[in-house]
Amino acid sequence: MITVYGFSPSGNCHKVKLLLEQLGRRLDRDYRWIETNSAIGETRTPGYLAKNPNGKVPMIELDDGCVLVESNAILCWLADGTSFLPADPWQKAQALSWLFFEQYSHEPYIAVARFICGWTPADSPRRAGLPVLRQCGHAALAVMERHLAANPWFTGSDYGIADVALYAYTCVAPHGGIALDAYPALRDWLSRVEATPGFLPLPAPEPAAQVLIDQSH
Amino acid sequence: MITVYGFSPSGNCHKVKLLLEQLGRRLDRDYRWIETNSAIGETRTPGYLAKNPNGKVPMIELDDGCVLVESNAILCWLADGTSFLPADPWQKAQALSWLFFEQYSHEPYIAVARFICGWTPADSPRRAGLPVLRQCGHAALAVMERHLAANPWFTGSDYGIADVALYAYTCVAPHGGIALDAYPALRDWLSRVEATPGFLPLPAPEPAAQVLIDQSH
Repeated sequence: MITVYGFSPSGNCHKVKLLLEQLGRRLDRDYRWIETNSAIGETRTPGYLAKNPNGKVPMIELDDGCVLVESNAILCWLADGTSFLPADPWQKAQALSWLFFEQYSHEPYIAVARFICGWTPADSPRRAGLPVLRQCGHAALAVMERHLAANPWFTGSDYGIADVALYAYTCVAPHGGIALDAYPALRDWLSRVEATPGFLPLPAPEPAAQVLIDQSH
Repeated sequence: MITVYGFSPSGNCHKVKLLLEQLGRRLDRDYRWIETNSAIGETRTPGYLAKNPNGKVPMIELDDGCVLVESNAILCWLADGTSFLPADPWQKAQALSWLFFEQYSHEPYIAVARFICGWTPADSPRRAGLPVLRQCGHAALAVMERHLAANPWFTGSDYGIADVALYAYTCVAPHGGIALDAYPALRDWLSRVEATPGFLPLPAPEPAAQVLIDQSH
């Protein structure tokens, strides 16, 4: 049994759950989920830091106590040898390239804008950073739109983990005030992802977060 | 022949050159290097953006015109099937985990602090961000130090691409005002990396950048 430490509203954590489900792994049969609220310090306890000194979710733990961190590394491990990651070295490298793009040029803007809008107080000084985050988030979406004008997926010729990773926060970019109207190919791709077998949507924000999100735009 | 588009002072670009050399590939025999100065917009020309819409270095291009971007994806592709990346899926995933750590929790602080100190004007408003960047950079180094207290390398049991990736900016963290004195295991690891066969040091900053670095502390 795989133990997943995750915070349900987090796209990085949802990636892991979505891939597990699409690989046919089932909650409480093949994996357990330990809800770990990083927004209130549950990844900063001594017990958690002993397992992951970087203090982040998601983390997976095997029955022998071995742990693996970093959402996209977890996706790679789960997908290894499956159709969700190409076996061809060049195609695999292209998928990895999109995984690194997601963590460097996409998530730090789109996920962080969303977090600030929904999970920080209405008067948080972090809100001053939203215009720059949104501008950089749009730049990332424009790179994706350009790829999708000529390619149906980000993981080689088929749906796979680069799509799982990029879907997670792209689908909720509007929570951070980053509209998707200007990206028709991207919106079509979101629909294709949502039509894949075993697809599982990201949970809706809890009511308090939704109120803050609605007030942010 | 592989064509590498890179900016020599960039640790992300040096990673590629270091691994190529350690794999026995030689400049102008097995790969060519096209110097591409991202600090003066050479990654934002129409010609460059046509190849990499994200406008970053490094980028590699094969003879058939196919390109691969993202430094750590390039490392994975070059190392695939070699001793620089473990074949065992779990060990490979751990190496990937460190590659994602490097791009998310390390480079955005340590490399950016260095860039601001050496490659922005002495009166750049970006310098106001240095204290936070340095604090987060130290947090990343502390995570590395903890790993190195019990493990000689970041890539499974041997030196490999996670070490190449993490070495690139750790060795020049002091350029950004991030001292390494508090991390003895990390300094020992830097020495071990520098003693690996075919090691190639990062070029020293050009004189104008060195003057700015010296004035930043």
